[in-house]
Amino acid sequence: MSGTPDARAVATWLRGLQDTLVDALAALDGSTFRRDRWTRAEGGEGLTCVIEDGPLFERGGVNFSHVQGTRLPPSATAARPGLAGCGFEATGVSLVLHPRNPYCPTVHMNVRFFLARPTAESAPAEPVWWFGGGMDLTPCYGFEDDARHFHATCRDAVAPFGEALHARFKRACDEYFFLPHRQEARGIGGIFFDDFSAPGFEASFALARSVGEAFLPAYAPIVARRRALPYGERERDFQACRRGRYVEFNLVCDRGTLFGLQSGGRAESILMSLPPEVKWRYDWHPEPGSAEARLYTDFLPPRAWV
Amino acid sequence: MSGTPDARAVATWLRGLQDTLVDALAALDGSTFRRDRWTRAEGGEGLTCVIEDGPLFERGGVNFSHVQGTRLPPSATAARPGLAGCGFEATGVSLVLHPRNPYCPTVHMNVRFFLARPTAESAPAEPVWWFGGGMDLTPCYGFEDDARHFHATCRDAVAPFGEALHARFKRACDEYFFLPHRQEARGIGGIFFDDFSAPGFEASFALARSVGEAFLPAYAPIVARRRALPYGERERDFQACRRGRYVEFNLVCDRGTLFGLQSGGRAESILMSLPPEVKWRYDWHPEPGSAEARLYTDFLPPRAWV
Repeated sequence: MSGTPDARAVATWLRGLQDTLVDALAALDGSTFRRDRWTRAEGGEGLTCVIEDGPLFERGGVNFSHVQGTRLPPSATAARPGLAGCGFEATGVSLVLHPRNPYCPTVHMNVRFFLARPTAESAPAEPVWWFGGGMDLTPCYGFEDDARHFHATCRDAVAPFGEALHARFKRACDEYFFLPHRQEARGIGGIFFDDFSAPGFEASFALARSVGEAFLPAYAPIVARRRALPYGERERDFQACRRGRYVEFNLVCDRGTLFGLQSGGRAESILMSLPPEVKWRYDWHPEPGSAEARLYTDFLPPRAWV
Repeated sequence: MSGTPDARAVATWLRGLQDTLVDALAALDGSTFRRDRWTRAEGGEGLTCVIEDGPLFERGGVNFSHVQGTRLPPSATAARPGLAGCGFEATGVSLVLHPRNPYCPTVHMNVRFFLARPTAESAPAEPVWWFGGGMDLTPCYGFEDDARHFHATCRDAVAPFGEALHARFKRACDEYFFLPHRQEARGIGGIFFDDFSAPGFEASFALARSVGEAFLPAYAPIVARRRALPYGERERDFQACRRGRYVEFNLVCDRGTLFGLQSGGRAESILMSLPPEVKWRYDWHPEPGSAEARLYTDFLPPRAWV
């Protein structure tokens, strides 16, 4: 273990990461993000950057938040009941992009730092801290090249921090982004980590930085390859139905969303992750062998892409 | 207390109620429902009746289910921890209708019966049972006449069972159909009851029947008044955004939906409650004084309609 946890240094880096991402994504899109600063009565502030109706991105956002609270909400302590009721500090950057073109995949990236401060009644004597984060890709139409590129970039981002990490983070991603009620993966995965503190603060922070900085190299080349592919109503329709699964995951299964909503987070910032136009249709299934069916047979079941 | 709880009698009545509702709604719409029978490996069966792309109803359904389980899921026992792990039997009819015309309100009705059977380890020695249900209206554009008619029909349905019941059930409805993260009601309410068993099985069952049978008189006249009103893109757009709130409530807040999904219920049947086409738009607010703004100022805040 090396270094004391420094929430301010993490928040400073996260602010810079948000700036970099917003500038790069605005340039990719060819339009601009709306920027909303907000504060939270219970303690904390954030900057929500949202893009809507862009040429490339139909809806998306890059959120920064840094909040303090006096009592951890239940969704945050399911895995660590000893922390229930602790004061906490949480800071993170969260990104979701829903491109208009159904051949361009939806993507999510998140880096977060969590610090629980013991109170008089609560159990642990020392502050408990960890990093979490990752990124994952959700195509409507799968492309093997894209999947390999995305997963290879994820692997390279964590490789300097330990041999076994990528396999562990990839498996955690496949497990986390899964809809039990559909018995279906949300997308084709990537990496996911949580409760990460084992190598000490400095090395954990370096890993988080490496993941955050790998996002543009992981995603931008995929967008470049797919953004000009022609599509029609059939593809838009499939995209709208697949986006329904994205909504189901985020509102029913995602701990980050539930933590945000339960802890009095800013609803519009949290729910910027939801897609712009969504459809639900009863018991719809793609025609066997179709491009739509291949998503279910060849891409959603977890695979060793690299 | 009079009568022993008779789950079979309740299920028989519920099947008949579903038939009546499906026939009447198909006639209102001028088309037909798709009917899917299903069974559940852990015990239970159901009949899902769905309508999509009808002239009147863009999407909706009337579900019947009768399921058994060996362990109550957590969402069912939050209010009664003593029942955790009990075997159970649950039967109900659940209805949601999303009309195409934005001047026709979305509506929800539900009647359900729950029976928890004690197991060796679990606490209560006697079977615990209750009825639940209610109905509520979710307009995009409010009409005072419609609100008064709907609430008056609800009041009349429960009046024979006790003076104080309507006020209690209306308040419970306002409290239940509320989105804490939006600080906003889902709709204009109606009646909601749960854990209802105080007057004994026969009277409780009679109340549930009265509520189920009041649905058509409560809703059909409203549809008749609004279904032919002309509308355009502005109204459809507002409807799509309001439907986003409906999705948020059902997936984040609704105990019935979570119970169904957690207990391994049939996802397509449970999620027939979700609207066909939905939009999310960042931080959108209606123009002050507009018809859209009046929903927020004059209809969503709980009111004494009758």
